[in-house]
Amino acid sequence: MNEPFDAVSVIRTKRDRNRIPDPQIDWVIDAYTRGIVAEEQMAALAMAILLNGMEGDELSRWTDAMIGSGERLDLSGVRRPTTDKHSTGGVGDKITLPLAPLVAALGAAVPQLSGRGLGHTGGTLDKLESIPGWRAEVSNADFIQQLNEIGAVICAAGDGLAPADRKLYALRDVTATVEAIPLIASSIMSKKIAEGSSSLVLDVKVGTGAFMKTEAQARTLAETMVALGTAAGTHTVALLTDMDTPLGLTVGNALEVRESIEVLAGGGPADVVELTVALAIQMLAGAGITGVDPADALADGRAMDVWRAMIRAQGGDPDATLPVAAEKHVVTSRVTGVLTRLDAYAVGVAAWRLGAGRARKEDQVSAAAGINLLVKPGDSVVTGQPLLVLHADDPDRFDRALQALEGGYDITPGGTFTPSPLIIDKIGR
Amino acid sequence: MNEPFDAVSVIRTKRDRNRIPDPQIDWVIDAYTRGIVAEEQMAALAMAILLNGMEGDELSRWTDAMIGSGERLDLSGVRRPTTDKHSTGGVGDKITLPLAPLVAALGAAVPQLSGRGLGHTGGTLDKLESIPGWRAEVSNADFIQQLNEIGAVICAAGDGLAPADRKLYALRDVTATVEAIPLIASSIMSKKIAEGSSSLVLDVKVGTGAFMKTEAQARTLAETMVALGTAAGTHTVALLTDMDTPLGLTVGNALEVRESIEVLAGGGPADVVELTVALAIQMLAGAGITGVDPADALADGRAMDVWRAMIRAQGGDPDATLPVAAEKHVVTSRVTGVLTRLDAYAVGVAAWRLGAGRARKEDQVSAAAGINLLVKPGDSVVTGQPLLVLHADDPDRFDRALQALEGGYDITPGGTFTPSPLIIDKIGR
Repeated sequence: MNEPFDAVSVIRTKRDRNRIPDPQIDWVIDAYTRGIVAEEQMAALAMAILLNGMEGDELSRWTDAMIGSGERLDLSGVRRPTTDKHSTGGVGDKITLPLAPLVAALGAAVPQLSGRGLGHTGGTLDKLESIPGWRAEVSNADFIQQLNEIGAVICAAGDGLAPADRKLYALRDVTATVEAIPLIASSIMSKKIAEGSSSLVLDVKVGTGAFMKTEAQARTLAETMVALGTAAGTHTVALLTDMDTPLGLTVGNALEVRESIEVLAGGGPADVVELTVALAIQMLAGAGITGVDPADALADGRAMDVWRAMIRAQGGDPDATLPVAAEKHVVTSRVTGVLTRLDAYAVGVAAWRLGAGRARKEDQVSAAAGINLLVKPGDSVVTGQPLLVLHADDPDRFDRALQALEGGYDITPGGTFTPSPLIIDKIGR
Repeated sequence: MNEPFDAVSVIRTKRDRNRIPDPQIDWVIDAYTRGIVAEEQMAALAMAILLNGMEGDELSRWTDAMIGSGERLDLSGVRRPTTDKHSTGGVGDKITLPLAPLVAALGAAVPQLSGRGLGHTGGTLDKLESIPGWRAEVSNADFIQQLNEIGAVICAAGDGLAPADRKLYALRDVTATVEAIPLIASSIMSKKIAEGSSSLVLDVKVGTGAFMKTEAQARTLAETMVALGTAAGTHTVALLTDMDTPLGLTVGNALEVRESIEVLAGGGPADVVELTVALAIQMLAGAGITGVDPADALADGRAMDVWRAMIRAQGGDPDATLPVAAEKHVVTSRVTGVLTRLDAYAVGVAAWRLGAGRARKEDQVSAAAGINLLVKPGDSVVTGQPLLVLHADDPDRFDRALQALEGGYDITPGGTFTPSPLIIDKIGR
């Protein structure tokens, strides 16, 4: 078969800091998906993109081509306005769990296609799978029906969405090209746009526990994604939010489900509630729903009702006892003072080592493993006071988790702590 | 087997513009040769090197690692001082043919491991293979014996020299990373240093028919290679030489052998003689031989004697009739004026299309195909005067060769031509 372009000339264009013309973008993504453009050629192109960047309309076309490599969900059968959320990933980030039913309770449909965790950040599906009976796979027909009847679905994305992205993501992982902002943005946005929601809210995390370590990087990523969504006709806004400290008081699958249920019952940690409500307001605005108060829907049980229906619709028992770890280890303070730092990355790695996360895609996660935070930055502690409770199925895991926590928090005698805002900025309108 | 490093961290180091530490350089070349570092990983690293460069000692270590991936020739059995030449490739560049026997005639040993041509530049082995009976393959024992007895061997490099380079070169070819100066320099120098000669002269071509189009690029490449040779203990100098115009009056395998024999007989085009003598002086100086005049050894037949012995030692008949093309086509001038430009690249592509070169490694070349230049820049011509004679085995090839020549030369009525120097500069001492 005769190909209209060749990979070397496409790579050379980007290598020499020029814009790749639209037909070559369409071709290179399609030919890569078909296996005509080889892995080593896409690796060289990805490195050239990382180092030389992409123009706005060039990246838009690239993202469109990624979407075009697969199917696009048809949500025309959904009778409510659709709105979706994506988080770039953090430690203790269980927000999707209370957020999707909350927004559904206020009249929107939330088609939330989610992933599993890798490394130190958890995955929404891993968390929900700690609920006995709950299943992540939902057929297309059930998906639409559940959106109409209940208003929220949290489920696994099918293999048909942006297959080019799945191939490219695996390649980037082994070629040190994960960190290219245009490629991160197009990877996220190609899947989110293909999911067909008419509005989208991005939670772009900044800090030690996030993928973006600096506010400048996070802002660039957020602006890039908002521009891509807008160009594709999806109403898109982003919140930049803090991820120097874990969200809430739990990290780990079943532990985070329990905390989410507390939020849905009108309680829960202040930071989780604050971010859930803030994201709900943005999602509802994107769906054209105003004049409602998400905090009310948490307080009066409407969000909880949707949660229970949503869990039940996917085979789960909302009243089932969640798994509990066989082994616990309490970390206590060696000094008296103020907790001035609790590093999200250290806590994330520790929870991962306890069994809550996976190192490779094939790994199993433990439903019960994780960490309870008994204190948060700003709290005063005395010598011997419990700080953290580690949970694991196997006590052999405590040592390496404790190593990860070393240097991960500071307790300063007579210290003071100035809280930084959880929600740093909003990008897009 | 446990690997001491991982490819992603090595790629990341170069991606982030840092120097790759020596142990990681050694490992990545070795692991790539063993197939542990994947093609896509080396592709990403090559693009990062192309865009971010390498420090001098970093590239030296990289080159050492490439040499270490294979064997190193042992020339300790050679009783004469050894000296070698490498040209970066041009059009009509047959200089190795008269040069090696000339330098041998003056007391040095010339172990000249050569390659075949690809694209618009010819290969020394292709040229010599137009001599009936001549063979490019020489055993190690015969190689040393011929160097001692005759003083010059021009033969094919074995597969054992720098195998990492062969693998990397093939990868660079498909990933638009051929043009990285550090990778070009280490590719050439790893093979040349592994060949074990104690001195080396580089002919770095500049111009339309060369790989380096600008003097600045060529100078950078020459300086990089001289530094690598010097760091490895090989006395190395480079001449920057013009390649805007083809060298001599012939382009093509048997045609260039004929012209080389003219030079060895004391005649031949002035530019070929000038460059042969200039390179001979540098090679002899590198071998510690001074007070000899290469022009004398061309004039009095000493170089020719070595040539005849050298061809005979490798099975060739120096008196055999060389192949002649079945078909000829004469290009005549359409105007009267001065030839002010004769583009080396256009002539090289035309000769390639006539059958003198190959598009892929597997292709056969024609011994007889090529081009005779009847005029050179500065010559006055009249309407209807023959300018070029094209030679091919198959007349169907003339059309595409003529297309390549279109716009490849200028004849200006009343024009003047200011010759530029053939030898632009010398790098190294």
